Amino acid sequence: MSLTLIIGNKNYSSWSMRAALVLELTEEPYEERKIPLFRPESRARLLAESPNGKVPVLLTEEGPVWDSMAIAEYLAETFSEFHLWPRGEYARAVARSICAEMHSGFAALRSHLPMDLKRTPKTVALPVDAQADIDRICVLWADCRERFGQDGPFLFGHVSIADAFYAPVAARLRGYAVPLPAEAAAYVETIYQWPAFQRWYRAALEETGEK
Amino acid sequence: MSLTLIIGNKNYSSWSMRAALVLELTEEPYEERKIPLFRPESRARLLAESPNGKVPVLLTEEGPVWDSMAIAEYLAETFSEFHLWPRGEYARAVARSICAEMHSGFAALRSHLPMDLKRTPKTVALPVDAQADIDRICVLWADCRERFGQDGPFLFGHVSIADAFYAPVAARLRGYAVPLPAEAAAYVETIYQWPAFQRWYRAALEETGEK
Repeated sequence: MSLTLIIGNKNYSSWSMRAALVLELTEEPYEERKIPLFRPESRARLLAESPNGKVPVLLTEEGPVWDSMAIAEYLAETFSEFHLWPRGEYARAVARSICAEMHSGFAALRSHLPMDLKRTPKTVALPVDAQADIDRICVLWADCRERFGQDGPFLFGHVSIADAFYAPVAARLRGYAVPLPAEAAAYVETIYQWPAFQRWYRAALEETGEK
Repeated sequence: MSLTLIIGNKNYSSWSMRAALVLELTEEPYEERKIPLFRPESRARLLAESPNGKVPVLLTEEGPVWDSMAIAEYLAETFSEFHLWPRGEYARAVARSICAEMHSGFAALRSHLPMDLKRTPKTVALPVDAQADIDRICVLWADCRERFGQDGPFLFGHVSIADAFYAPVAARLRGYAVPLPAEAAAYVETIYQWPAFQRWYRAALEETGEK
């Protein structure tokens, strides 16, 4: 199987990071191809490679699969032996629920605290709606950890797609030095100890593309 | 199996419609419970029933599954014999890609042409970004119909989750009398002939809740 993942800047593209972290869970070799964003030619390159003009896109032998959510489901199905979703039927439904919630929501968090892995951690004034997003995320993490997290430090115990989807949130919370309840802070640290996250993070720090 | 779907107003809640149309594909009996939106008590009722304070939510015997995307995947898995996603592996990946594209995108279409099933069809001036969303949707529909639509009039031939996700778009295009290429207009008509859509549509017309 030949797989190519098209991504944006590692420092800024949180959706690219999510797809890459899911792909890392499959242990399958793949080619990575970067389209630097924020350049005059970026839009044309994106439209040439991606059906919806956005990253990430996974090029498979049959054609492109686009959007991080669809890429995650495609990989979970194709590499079913790796159990990219939690094993329990209801745990899996909750994992999909929180990923979908991330996929279509938390607009205030995303616009006020954009991912910027090179950022020196520093607090910012948080608008009420961004704080509400953060509060909801802390509740959601605590619920998953309490109900499904007994077999490990990740949201559903073992690492899963849900952790890939919330890894960029962990990076935002640390980058903007957001005060957190102890259990949420512990989960952020779990993400920072995840080897696949560390590889992406280190590569982002070395990246030269600027905004 | 006992299932309850919590929805918003049938006239306005396009995400509720999507979940209901997917649930109809399973042929499983279910209870429908409506929380009228736009009322002083709506927010409190939503928060009491829904983990993220939004509709739709599917109440299962094990607990709630929220967000239309996660509900669709839960039902596809639980009622696998109904093949709610297309049968071919790559067709399924494309179906998930276009559903994810709908789930996180088309913001201009959604804000400028909100679903309103009671609306008497009438054109509106379309901002450039809303027209771009419509153009993309017409391309995407044509691609799916051409590549995967040989066994029937739906996007992937047989009816699937993808049609449930684009049914509210069909309702918007008709409600705002948007000029369409012939093949897109034919697909809108396919949606309007779908019995499950017709049941929802008729119920919306009889609904008394107003904005």
